Amino acid sequence: MSKRQLKLGANLNGVGNSISFWRHPEVPTNASVNLAFYKEQARKAEQGKFDLLFIADGLFINEKSNPHFLNRFEPLTLLSALSEATSHIGLVATLSTSYSEPFTVARQFASIDHLSGGRAGWNVVTSPLEGSALNFGKGEHPHHSLRYEIAEEHLEVVKGLWDSWEDDAFVRDKASGVFFDSAKLHTLNHKGKHFAVQGPLNVARSKQGYPVVFQAGSSDSGKDLAAKSADAVYTGHETFEQARAFYQDVKGRATAYGRQPDDILIFPGIGPIVGRTEEEAERKYQEIAELVTIDQALNYLGRYFEHYDFSQHALDEPFPELGDFGSNSFRSTTDRIKQEAKEQGLTLRQVALRASTPRSNFIGTPEKVADLIQQWFEGGAADGFNIRTVVPNGLADFVDLVVPVLQERGIFRKEYESDTLRGNLGLNVPVNRYIRQAEAVRGN
Amino acid sequence: MSKRQLKLGANLNGVGNSISFWRHPEVPTNASVNLAFYKEQARKAEQGKFDLLFIADGLFINEKSNPHFLNRFEPLTLLSALSEATSHIGLVATLSTSYSEPFTVARQFASIDHLSGGRAGWNVVTSPLEGSALNFGKGEHPHHSLRYEIAEEHLEVVKGLWDSWEDDAFVRDKASGVFFDSAKLHTLNHKGKHFAVQGPLNVARSKQGYPVVFQAGSSDSGKDLAAKSADAVYTGHETFEQARAFYQDVKGRATAYGRQPDDILIFPGIGPIVGRTEEEAERKYQEIAELVTIDQALNYLGRYFEHYDFSQHALDEPFPELGDFGSNSFRSTTDRIKQEAKEQGLTLRQVALRASTPRSNFIGTPEKVADLIQQWFEGGAADGFNIRTVVPNGLADFVDLVVPVLQERGIFRKEYESDTLRGNLGLNVPVNRYIRQAEAVRGN
Ligand SMILES: Cc1cc2nc3c(=O)[nH]c(=O)nc-3n(C[C@H](O)[C@H](O)[C@H](O)COP(=O)(O)O)c2cc1C
Ligand SMILES: Cc1cc2nc3c(=O)[nH]c(=O)nc-3n(C[C@H](O)[C@H](O)[C@H](O)COP(=O)(O)O)c2cc1C
Repeated sequence: MSKRQLKLGANLNGVGNSISFWRHPEVPTNASVNLAFYKEQARKAEQGKFDLLFIADGLFINEKSNPHFLNRFEPLTLLSALSEATSHIGLVATLSTSYSEPFTVARQFASIDHLSGGRAGWNVVTSPLEGSALNFGKGEHPHHSLRYEIAEEHLEVVKGLWDSWEDDAFVRDKASGVFFDSAKLHTLNHKGKHFAVQGPLNVARSKQGYPVVFQAGSSDSGKDLAAKSADAVYTGHETFEQARAFYQDVKGRATAYGRQPDDILIFPGIGPIVGRTEEEAERKYQEIAELVTIDQALNYLGRYFEHYDFSQHALDEPFPELGDFGSNSFRSTTDRIKQEAKEQGLTLRQVALRASTPRSNFIGTPEKVADLIQQWFEGGAADGFNIRTVVPNGLADFVDLVVPVLQERGIFRKEYESDTLRGNLGLNVPVNRYIRQAEAVRGN
Repeated sequence: MSKRQLKLGANLNGVGNSISFWRHPEVPTNASVNLAFYKEQARKAEQGKFDLLFIADGLFINEKSNPHFLNRFEPLTLLSALSEATSHIGLVATLSTSYSEPFTVARQFASIDHLSGGRAGWNVVTSPLEGSALNFGKGEHPHHSLRYEIAEEHLEVVKGLWDSWEDDAFVRDKASGVFFDSAKLHTLNHKGKHFAVQGPLNVARSKQGYPVVFQAGSSDSGKDLAAKSADAVYTGHETFEQARAFYQDVKGRATAYGRQPDDILIFPGIGPIVGRTEEEAERKYQEIAELVTIDQALNYLGRYFEHYDFSQHALDEPFPELGDFGSNSFRSTTDRIKQEAKEQGLTLRQVALRASTPRSNFIGTPEKVADLIQQWFEGGAADGFNIRTVVPNGLADFVDLVVPVLQERGIFRKEYESDTLRGNLGLNVPVNRYIRQAEAVRGN
């Protein structure tokens, strides 16, 4: 039997992976709205046989926001354009269930799925930033648990809409004039607590059935949602032990929902920094870190804590007690930051600089980075990784230097196995619910 | 001075321009979800130096819907993909103000505008079909006048969001670390009757300022909205006289709002049928018309009248009295159908067959079709035309046979004047409202 294969995503992020990244001489300052830049990255990732491109998103900015967030492409339109510049790589866009209509979401993803020949994916998020509510006429940003309640129902509706048409519904027989078989058209008639959506959807399923569903959000509610309904999870961890605990936790929850462990893939996000020598890799990190000022770093940190103003605290004192701040936005991230600060006795300055220019553990020579990846992958901490670019040419370095090592070790593909995202990820094509129901009735 | 120039749009519509179109041997039956088909059409239109591609849309289907409506690409994702297959032609997507969030709409169009280098356009519609409400959790489809009230506010919000960033806001100075000038970032703070949207938008303006705003809807409310806020109008008329009256009406309304007549372009939609001889053209029409059954035709007609069931009436009796049916959906269309039936003494069968396979007046030899176009264009009935494909290869015939005649006569371009849609349409780049306001304060 062939070895279990690692999966790889490229998290494309314009000027976005640290607040000072854009200042580096080798980075185009308009990268976030530069299609040529994205195309080059996309093609590089496809050359490296990556499974997917991944686009994060956000729905609120103010003058303190990260440069990338201020002015960037909208993910769905961006990926539609990139579908034309690529042929095999998956296309995963982030979209929030807190501020969108399931009918529109189902349609747009299904449409990209057709445009790309079955390569679309949706990263389900619930929007961490309070301010998002103000851009969508909502008085209040729904609380963390309510956001996840909405997310669960939203996702169910979207999947229901995706099943509107059975795969062989379109007869299209010119001679008889029968375009479709109306017995294979299904009206969802969803009436729930947060959504009422009749359907049917005005687009059929693609050859991968549904777009691949990612979930990003690592709190208990996030893990539960993923375990129940997602094909993959995007998460972030500093250490192997944390990642392993998370991995086992999510797989366990999925099993409790009656799924197989392999039905859900865990993708920690990492920002590898690769050099031909350890020193070269360190130098690359320093070049970026040195471009941040402490004011920017404090401001950046505040974003995770509901725009908390950290400038009121002394820089070289222990990281302040914040009580509940941070619990309604990026909860899993802020919990981690608070815990590390306490455990390692970090000052505010240290926490801020680390947060604003995260220093990847995946730093060093190609072999060292490949070793870490293999350790996480074989040690039960990851099925794949979402690769962020945190130094100039970070993706190209990874593709040129690390991928060949992983291929050599037999844990990463040399050619795409499939032309759909599901196919490459080794995920099943979901059976249409109406066929499942009919089979259940017949006792199959 | 050079002659006033005609504008041309290609209304791409998959299998959609008559209910039987897909049955023709030369039409791919999956055209509505076939990207290769759309790309071929898009490239043909660009070869013909058309100003724009135009994608219609709808938000409700049931088993009686037109084949094209059942299963088609979503317009924004489709046009993003087509932006990569083309370089100069404009990309106009239909999107309803009745069932969308201004923040998302502003973002997605701005994003396509960047992706395409300033070629995007938005066709503002209010959704004629009652059933749309059921797909968006709304108890009731807003009435015609309320839909237009919502549309006006929606469009104002979107334009406000598009002005969030002044064109020179992004300094991006690596040396000083200044990414943008915060004095050039503006927060809309809109609080209106139907929408509350704070802003700012997380994407800047493209080089054409705003995407071009089309409006489709020809009732008084529709004309008013266009006259006040649109760059162009998509409309439909059977005769020169009707088209001319409409044209003068809209231009008059625009003038009353303090605009110049040239600030708003009127595009009647036509479905030309071109043959090398009159007979060839007639034969092409007959080939399509003969593929419709009377049942399908009645059903199709009913769609315009809130899914009225016409099968309850005798086929060869005069078209029935319908009272108010049809007034809350496609009002301008149903008014026209009722009026023609009365004036010309048509039977139900005649009305249904004509509606299901409209017989274009623009039918005949290239010269005859060019004559009609020129008559409408120079006679004050049109600034341009939206060309529908109603017979196989209809667009290619138009590009190959009619465009050269129009070019020869000096009323249509041989080369694109600009690489933005606004530039080709001869429309001004709108000045950012915050600059206008500042200039007003300074007394300019
Ligand atoms: C690795 C990771 C990536 C995320 N990416 C996004 C994103 O791109 N956009 C977004 O709105 N939220 C994103 N989120 C936020 C979550 O979707 C969620 O709204 C927030 O983190 C709170 O959920 P949690 O407490 O379950 O983590 C991300 C979260 C994690 C952990
Ligand atoms: C030429 C024309 C094209 C239209 N295209 C669309 C369309 O693609 N999608 C849509 O939802 N409505 C479309 N409409 C409908 C209008 O936007 C509007 O909702 C409806 O016609 C009622 O407005 P009216 O009475 O002002 O014409 C179109 C209307 C006209 C006249």
